[in-house]
Amino acid sequence: MRVALWNRNRDRHVRTIYREGQVVKLIDQTRLPLELVIVECTEAGELCEAIRTMRIRGAPALGVAAAYAFALGAEEAGGDAQAVLAHLDEVAALVRRTRPTAVNLFWGVERALAEARSAAANGPLALRAALWELADRLADEDVALNQRLGANGAALISEGARILTHCNAGSLATVGWGTALGVVRTAHRAGRRLHVFVDETRPFLQGARLTAWELEQEGVPYTIITDSTAGHLMARGEIDLCLVGADRIAASGDVANKIGTYTLSVLANAHRLPFYVAAPTSTIDLSTETGAEIPIEERDSSEVLSFAGVRVAPSGARARNPAFDVTPSRFVTAIITEVGVHSAPYEITLEEAVRAGPHPLPPDPDRHAGSPP
Amino acid sequence: MRVALWNRNRDRHVRTIYREGQVVKLIDQTRLPLELVIVECTEAGELCEAIRTMRIRGAPALGVAAAYAFALGAEEAGGDAQAVLAHLDEVAALVRRTRPTAVNLFWGVERALAEARSAAANGPLALRAALWELADRLADEDVALNQRLGANGAALISEGARILTHCNAGSLATVGWGTALGVVRTAHRAGRRLHVFVDETRPFLQGARLTAWELEQEGVPYTIITDSTAGHLMARGEIDLCLVGADRIAASGDVANKIGTYTLSVLANAHRLPFYVAAPTSTIDLSTETGAEIPIEERDSSEVLSFAGVRVAPSGARARNPAFDVTPSRFVTAIITEVGVHSAPYEITLEEAVRAGPHPLPPDPDRHAGSPP
Repeated sequence: MRVALWNRNRDRHVRTIYREGQVVKLIDQTRLPLELVIVECTEAGELCEAIRTMRIRGAPALGVAAAYAFALGAEEAGGDAQAVLAHLDEVAALVRRTRPTAVNLFWGVERALAEARSAAANGPLALRAALWELADRLADEDVALNQRLGANGAALISEGARILTHCNAGSLATVGWGTALGVVRTAHRAGRRLHVFVDETRPFLQGARLTAWELEQEGVPYTIITDSTAGHLMARGEIDLCLVGADRIAASGDVANKIGTYTLSVLANAHRLPFYVAAPTSTIDLSTETGAEIPIEERDSSEVLSFAGVRVAPSGARARNPAFDVTPSRFVTAIITEVGVHSAPYEITLEEAVRAGPHPLPPDPDRHAGSPP
Repeated sequence: MRVALWNRNRDRHVRTIYREGQVVKLIDQTRLPLELVIVECTEAGELCEAIRTMRIRGAPALGVAAAYAFALGAEEAGGDAQAVLAHLDEVAALVRRTRPTAVNLFWGVERALAEARSAAANGPLALRAALWELADRLADEDVALNQRLGANGAALISEGARILTHCNAGSLATVGWGTALGVVRTAHRAGRRLHVFVDETRPFLQGARLTAWELEQEGVPYTIITDSTAGHLMARGEIDLCLVGADRIAASGDVANKIGTYTLSVLANAHRLPFYVAAPTSTIDLSTETGAEIPIEERDSSEVLSFAGVRVAPSGARARNPAFDVTPSRFVTAIITEVGVHSAPYEITLEEAVRAGPHPLPPDPDRHAGSPP
C-alpha cells in the first residue's frame, strides 16, 4: 500500500476511489482534514485492510470498493478461469469479513461474483477485463445516480433551510457527489440559501473531519456541533430538518446508519421535524425484513478511549463502541433515492424503488451473510 | 498559581478543593485522568482564572470556590474593614464574570458578601477570619449534605440497576462525595450491585476523564460510551434509569445541566425510563421561575474543533459550543436533594425543599445577575 499526493479531479467534486491502470487509489479518510493523502492498493488484501481500518468508508463507496477488490484479486490469480474463480471465492470471504453493516459491500460482492462467473467462459483475460470494467461502471454509475438522488432530494429543501446532518454522507461516503450531502450540494448549486449543522460524530469524527471539509470546499455555510448539542438547538427552534445517509435499509423502512442517528430521529420526532434518509436503491436490502435483523458492527473500544493517539480515559477503563444503530421506519419522514422520494408504507414503496432502480436483484437470504471481523 | 502533587485525603474519597493556611488548593481537572496535579491559589484572581478555565468545575464545587475567592480577596486588601469590603465588591464582580450558569457560584458570592458585611464591625482581622471560617464550613457542609443526598437517592436504585450518567456529578463536581455519583457511591458501599454507563460528554470529556476516574477508584463497574450511543442502548433495553447532576434548578423544576442532558431526558421519556436529577438545595434557584430565564454559557469553539489538544476540523471551520441545556420539568421523574426526594408539582415541592435545607435564603432577583465573560 503506497501513499501518493492527490490531484482534485475535473468534476469539481471529490472522487473518493478510482483506478489508474491496475492500481486502485483512494483518499485516506483517516488523515483528513489535516492531510489529503491517496492510498494506492495493488492487492485485494490491501484494499480490504483499507476498508477495515476505515481509510475508505460510507456504504455506497464500500459497494464500489468491493468490486475493485475483485478486479485486484483476479489479477493476483494465475492459471485458467476456474483457478481465478476459486481465488475470487477467497476474495469474497475476505471482503465480507471487513465490515458487517453496510449492505452495499455485500451487494458489490454479489455483483462482482456474478460478473466473474458469466465472463469465465471467455477465459481468464476476459474475466479480469470484465471485473475492471464492472468496477469502473459501478463507480461512474454511483456519481450519476447520486446526482439524480440530489435532484430528487433538493426539491424537499426550502430556501433558508437549517439542515442537521450526522456523520458523512457526502462525496467521501460515495464515489462522488454524495447522498445526504449530495442533496445539499445540488440545492446549494441551484442557488438555494441554506445552513448545515454538522454533528461532529464521535468516535470517528466523520462530521467534524469529513463533512466539514466537504462543505468548506463547496462553500456551503455550516456550523460544527457536538453530537449532544442537536437536541438543544431543536428545542430552541434552530433546526428545520434532519438529513442523513444510510448503511442498510430494511424492507420495513428501518434504517441502519451511523451510531447517533437513532437519537436524532427520536429528537426530530419529539420536535416534529422532518427526518429524511438519502441513499441509493443499492442500500435497500429487501431480504432484511426489519432493522432487528441488521448486524451491528462493534468496533474496538480504543476509538472511544483515545483520540489521535492521545488517551483520554483512565487506564483500566472499558468502553462500548457500536458503530451503527437502527432508526425505526416510524421516525423516517421519507427515503430519498435516485428513483424518487419514498414514504410509508415502506413495505410497498421500497420494493417499487428497488424494481425501478438500476440493479433490481432478487432478494437473496444468503446475500449478506457477513459477520464481524 | 503553583502546582504541587496531591495526596489522597483520609476520607477515602477525593477532596476537590481545600486550604492549607492561606493557600487554596484544588485538583486540576483539566489534567485528569492522565496526571493528578494540585493547583495552589494565593490570590482571588488566580482562583477565578481556575474557575474560568475549568480547572475546577461542577456547580457545588463552584459555590465553595467562590467563598474561598473572597477569603483570598480579603487577605489581599490593606486598610480598615471598609477598605476590605470595597475590595470584596471587586472580587464579587470578578467571580460573577467567570461562569454564568451554575447558580451555586452566585449563591457562594452572596453568602460570602453577607458574612463579610456582618463581620466588618469587628475590624479587618475578624472579617478575614470570618471569611476563611465560612469557606471551610461550606466545604465541610458540602461533603456532609452530599452524603445525606446519597442516602436519599440510593433508596431509588434497585439491585442490578444499569445507570446512565452524563458529565461528572461526582466528588470532583463537589468538595467531596458527589451528587449523582454520590448516590452511586452510597448504593455501591451499601453492597448494591450496579453498573454505570458513562457518557463521555463532549467537548470537555468530563465523563471519560473524570467520572470514569472516580468510578475506577471506587471500584464501581462502568462502561464509557460516546454521547450518541445512549439512545441505542436504551432501545435495546440495556439502561434502567438516568441519573445526572444540575447546575441550576428553576422554581418550575426545569433543570440546567451539561449540554446533552436535555437529549438524554427526551430519550428517557421516549423509552419510559426514570430520569433523576441529584443536586443540593443550594442549586435550586427559586428566583428563576423557569428554565427559559437561565443564562446558557457559550464557550470557545476551540473546545469543539479540537480533541484532546489535537485539531480535528478543517481550518476555517466554525462551531457552536453551548456548555449547558435546559431539561423541562415534565421529563424529570424526581429531584434528589439532601433533604429528600422531590417530584411534581415542583413549584410546591422545591420551595419546601429549600425551606428545609441548610440555607433557606429568600429569593432575590438580583442574586444571580451574572453575565457571560
